[in-house]
Amino acid sequence: MSTISIATATEVMDLLRDDLLAIEREFTVQSASPVQVITDIAEYLIAGGGKRIRPLLLLLSAKALGATSQSRIRLGAVVEMLHTATLVHDDIIDEADTRRGRPSSNTAWGNSKCVLAGDWLYMQSFRTALEERNFHVLDLLITLTQQMVEGELLQMEKLGHLINEEEYFDLIFRKTAFLFKVSMQLGAAIEGASDQTEEKLGEYGRNLGLAFQIVDDVLDLTAAEDVLGKPVASDLREGKATLAVIHALERGTGADREAIRTVLADRSFAHVSHVQILEILQRHGSIDYAMDTACAYAEAARLSIADLPATDAKRALLWVPGFVTSRDR
Amino acid sequence: MSTISIATATEVMDLLRDDLLAIEREFTVQSASPVQVITDIAEYLIAGGGKRIRPLLLLLSAKALGATSQSRIRLGAVVEMLHTATLVHDDIIDEADTRRGRPSSNTAWGNSKCVLAGDWLYMQSFRTALEERNFHVLDLLITLTQQMVEGELLQMEKLGHLINEEEYFDLIFRKTAFLFKVSMQLGAAIEGASDQTEEKLGEYGRNLGLAFQIVDDVLDLTAAEDVLGKPVASDLREGKATLAVIHALERGTGADREAIRTVLADRSFAHVSHVQILEILQRHGSIDYAMDTACAYAEAARLSIADLPATDAKRALLWVPGFVTSRDR
Repeated sequence: MSTISIATATEVMDLLRDDLLAIEREFTVQSASPVQVITDIAEYLIAGGGKRIRPLLLLLSAKALGATSQSRIRLGAVVEMLHTATLVHDDIIDEADTRRGRPSSNTAWGNSKCVLAGDWLYMQSFRTALEERNFHVLDLLITLTQQMVEGELLQMEKLGHLINEEEYFDLIFRKTAFLFKVSMQLGAAIEGASDQTEEKLGEYGRNLGLAFQIVDDVLDLTAAEDVLGKPVASDLREGKATLAVIHALERGTGADREAIRTVLADRSFAHVSHVQILEILQRHGSIDYAMDTACAYAEAARLSIADLPATDAKRALLWVPGFVTSRDR
Repeated sequence: MSTISIATATEVMDLLRDDLLAIEREFTVQSASPVQVITDIAEYLIAGGGKRIRPLLLLLSAKALGATSQSRIRLGAVVEMLHTATLVHDDIIDEADTRRGRPSSNTAWGNSKCVLAGDWLYMQSFRTALEERNFHVLDLLITLTQQMVEGELLQMEKLGHLINEEEYFDLIFRKTAFLFKVSMQLGAAIEGASDQTEEKLGEYGRNLGLAFQIVDDVLDLTAAEDVLGKPVASDLREGKATLAVIHALERGTGADREAIRTVLADRSFAHVSHVQILEILQRHGSIDYAMDTACAYAEAARLSIADLPATDAKRALLWVPGFVTSRDR
């Protein structure tokens, strides 16, 4: 097996700049509705930025297989639009005040309009995908969307309760890793890849998505508010137990468990402070445990694509997991 | 042109009973999710009944063209599921307490779960439709759904304001008549009908849908609460001006207009009573005007299918408009 070096951030951006710009344009065009308020909400969300990691994965997947099809631009916009639709509805459900350092769309427009704007964005993603005239693409997207919605409902049912690692991994697979997986699969599908190749690229996406969400959950516990763009420890405030917390629950003293239980049930730091929780997590090495787990998934992602031919896109795909696990927001 | 008699309710039910039962079973099967709360909400909505008029139209459209395809059962379930999805989200938006004489789903399960349950029902409709492997069917359904969502948003923007007839017809077309139209078109599409035939059947659906919604809006103003299964004049309480009200606004005295404006702006009968409003509508013949308009659309629906060959299904389609305009709830 040939050895292949890992790309740098600059190289990845050089490789994808034109396509990412084309996707931004496509996303803007696709988000224009004859009903002004939909366009307003969509433009607000586009301008809010985001890492565009899902279109980036789709592009790299397609490029690793030759990138002969222009469909990558359209479907890159689709996966970002779908992601945006889930954010609009999730913010309603979580009663979020802010998103990416700005008022969340539900704060700015109210819940009712955002229910409908989210619906519209879902429909527009499917309409755009439908233009591909490819049933496999539609199957992937519909299955994905249902899994994400079910994941969000499962999460709601578990709010305030202790969950185990298995339940945690099921939740983050549905919430995050499934879309990463499908983004990679779509890149393969439009290049006419074999089932086996599509599966391996999907596996990369799944592993990377799990790593991504574990890191996200750690940052929620440890990052500074001004870096994160939202209140710290918002998961605990919403009654969500994430990997480090589950680790501490399973290893902690009776008092430790009771402190965590209290925060989850209260959905606030009224009786137990954020500093106390961080102390418990530190004492049990729970943050390190979560980060080590994320790094193991990042490595698994790299291994999933070992058999791909050596290309700039493969080098970039080998770079992404490290970027995901070393980010600070 | 041959004369053809109109069917009776019993004849129509005899014609459709088996298919409608098959659609109920299909709807129940399709609404089962691995996430229990989705199945619970879906079963609650199915048990709540409803007129099943959209599947009925799809069946009659298919039967008028031979009904050779079993797709009518699957797509009959799809249009009812899609309708149910819109009801779940609309009830959140309208903050409805009751629906069909029972607590609305948002009252029973809360808004957050109902946002997601509605999303899931939309996705499940598309997933079920996708099994048809027919792009035209998917095009019809996606366009429909976006039109409905846009219609609901347009309606929200106009709440509390005076609208004219043109705006009213645009709203009820999107909200109701588009789904009636597409139900008819789907029946034609699965029978491999010509574009021209599909268009005529669609035209029937559009005309019938407009008649249906105008009558619905009249009943909201005039029916008794125990017959209707929801509070009377809920449209006015939500700030919605419907056809009879628009008619009175355009013909009323300054005092009449002011009374109607006040109710729409207040979204309550705090300053002007329901009886006062009904008196204004009676004095200007506004209820009769709305009912006459509904009957004209009902007649237009019958004319749209004049060229269809004489079949039991055609006789049934000629019966439906009279049923729609003479119902009391």
